[in-house]
Amino acid sequence: MRSDLDQLMEARGLAALIVACDEAFSAPRAYLTNGVAITTGLVMRAHGQQPVIFANPMETEEAAQSGLEVISFEEIGWSALVSEMAGDRTKAEVVFWRRALERIGVTSGKVGVYGVSHLNTILGLAALLAEAHPQYQFVGELGMTVFDEAYLTKDEAEIARVRSVAERANAVVAQTWDFIASHRAEGERVVNAEGAPLTVGDVKRFVRRASLDLELDAGSFIFAPGRDGGFPHSRGEAGDELRLGQAIVFDYFPNEIGGGYFHDMTRTWSLGYATPEVQAAYDQVMASFEIAEDNFRVGMPTKALQESVQDYFESLGHPTSRSAPGTATGYVHSLGHGVGLNIHERPSIGHLSKDTFQAGNLFTIEPGLYYPERGFGIRIEDTLLVTDTGELASLTPFKKDLVLPLQG
Amino acid sequence: MRSDLDQLMEARGLAALIVACDEAFSAPRAYLTNGVAITTGLVMRAHGQQPVIFANPMETEEAAQSGLEVISFEEIGWSALVSEMAGDRTKAEVVFWRRALERIGVTSGKVGVYGVSHLNTILGLAALLAEAHPQYQFVGELGMTVFDEAYLTKDEAEIARVRSVAERANAVVAQTWDFIASHRAEGERVVNAEGAPLTVGDVKRFVRRASLDLELDAGSFIFAPGRDGGFPHSRGEAGDELRLGQAIVFDYFPNEIGGGYFHDMTRTWSLGYATPEVQAAYDQVMASFEIAEDNFRVGMPTKALQESVQDYFESLGHPTSRSAPGTATGYVHSLGHGVGLNIHERPSIGHLSKDTFQAGNLFTIEPGLYYPERGFGIRIEDTLLVTDTGELASLTPFKKDLVLPLQG
Repeated sequence: MRSDLDQLMEARGLAALIVACDEAFSAPRAYLTNGVAITTGLVMRAHGQQPVIFANPMETEEAAQSGLEVISFEEIGWSALVSEMAGDRTKAEVVFWRRALERIGVTSGKVGVYGVSHLNTILGLAALLAEAHPQYQFVGELGMTVFDEAYLTKDEAEIARVRSVAERANAVVAQTWDFIASHRAEGERVVNAEGAPLTVGDVKRFVRRASLDLELDAGSFIFAPGRDGGFPHSRGEAGDELRLGQAIVFDYFPNEIGGGYFHDMTRTWSLGYATPEVQAAYDQVMASFEIAEDNFRVGMPTKALQESVQDYFESLGHPTSRSAPGTATGYVHSLGHGVGLNIHERPSIGHLSKDTFQAGNLFTIEPGLYYPERGFGIRIEDTLLVTDTGELASLTPFKKDLVLPLQG
Repeated sequence: MRSDLDQLMEARGLAALIVACDEAFSAPRAYLTNGVAITTGLVMRAHGQQPVIFANPMETEEAAQSGLEVISFEEIGWSALVSEMAGDRTKAEVVFWRRALERIGVTSGKVGVYGVSHLNTILGLAALLAEAHPQYQFVGELGMTVFDEAYLTKDEAEIARVRSVAERANAVVAQTWDFIASHRAEGERVVNAEGAPLTVGDVKRFVRRASLDLELDAGSFIFAPGRDGGFPHSRGEAGDELRLGQAIVFDYFPNEIGGGYFHDMTRTWSLGYATPEVQAAYDQVMASFEIAEDNFRVGMPTKALQESVQDYFESLGHPTSRSAPGTATGYVHSLGHGVGLNIHERPSIGHLSKDTFQAGNLFTIEPGLYYPERGFGIRIEDTLLVTDTGELASLTPFKKDLVLPLQG
């Protein structure tokens, strides 16, 4: 968790962390700035110190909302530097990074570089920084970074925010259920009171609006009926009309508007009725979900949980990503993933994962079965928290019914 | 424009472009994939060839909507590689990049790396790639990249999309004007029919909803009254109640939902009436806007346009970023910037810029005056296109009135 950052930096020999800011949301930025979204600037953290924000003068007011020390570019001479370099901002930046590091008291050592931004810029800049400032080693961590390791366990403030997102996300899914249920069947079609067919696009618009009303960003959620649902990341085509008896995968993973904590849930709905084939597959996915919940123990390797689900699906004859690596049918993905400021973070819960479950983890359990050639995919997903006492607490109470009945 | 990519690659000696994909929107990705948002994978373009998408099997269906060739990770052995590397995905990726380059026929040479993604990952990976594959030079371009230079001029298909965003953006601003105008004054407060005060948050909610209804992503737009408006990038506090006679900077720069082309416009409104001080400053900003429009000539250095506006403001006694580098009062920023798949792209229009105006440019003109200590900021911004015949065509017809009258 956040309070571990010093210790995690020490373990990696890092004298400082630098998060380069950009328009794109970045979790390390939000983690250090308490969610404040600086779009131009650097957030730096020296070992043993609070983070400091170096901000464009136009953004110092926003930056100050973080409660952190804010240093305007001009306080370390940005405009004069750019003039000195005859307008070459790259050259100015190379000097600027050194000045900023010196300003937070870091005059040498290993500096980890993070953030979500333009890859070409950092690759180019890193080469110039290495040449100009040999007293520093600017490094890109791979694998489990200092942030990834801190994210693994959530503190009270984070859990409170996630719970709020979870409550609102469950409410949006409930409203979506009610919205669809207010339609009626006309043959195999689903129509509104005026007889107009209900499309994927109609539902998506409803979900985006309902999200907005609760200050959630719906992002690029999945509402994928039939064969589309058979591809785990297909998002659904706006023009497609909904039909009875077709499994729809609704994977909804909103976050706080402007970028922030996520909640991740999936329900699979079949409108009016379910075909026997879909119902049978659904029952198996539900059973696998319960197997995962039952087998969970704090302190266990995460891969053991995935293996328990793979064992079950394989015993029923389904291919899995273990029995048939790269398979596009059967149980094709990992059991789940950590959730936080990133929609996907550690722990990972695949059969090759090396993580271990611990108190404070927040992650998804999301088994599924995919048979696009048979015209369906099924997935059920909750977000769960491991409590201080090692219990699994679901943040996703919304009912797990397959059949969504329409108006008589 | 897009059709210049081969020539631009040649000029830089680039054998291939690689765009690394991530959850974050990235303009190079959208530029090569016709807007398709792959979240895991690589988009590659060999010189003289169409781009090719290497996608996670879960995303191949989405990727195919680009009309490009799509190669599943599995076709070049991803899962087997990960197993071979005992689950070390980084090691697998190093081999994967080489295989992908070979697959598109690039066996050596300079490879430009682009995209918006995690900086630590690319820095770490670049070091490993350089070591493992000395036949390639993986480079990060600085300054004007191959993409930046291509973005400079828009083709017909791009202009059509921008025009559609522009029309919808102007409509949202018009609706917002009407929404505020439907309120009435109560002393210096602005209240609705029930007497409840109108807040910044109320207006922001209205704008987000109206945007969504027109399939626009409002993003983190600015609606900043009074002193907040005096900081060009302050976004406005949701709880603040609107008051009569206060200048409000409304900077609205939506893009196509899911990531795509932007339109950028700013209006400054004073509710009910304007103070003489604000009215005078507003008239000067309007005059500077017209100076910029009048002085524009295709083929001129962009900095000459900024200088014409700086000359004007300085003649009136205002500090500018030229006369007082780093100033936070007066005319503090550049005159404008290119717009496209990026909200800020080339050409830049500052007094240190080296760009030249040409047909096909799409950019903003946005002079402003900022006096936070006097409690106001003013900015007026249109997005303009340079036509084939070198004329300046505004995509932002919405009226430039300062005073927004309330209900009797």
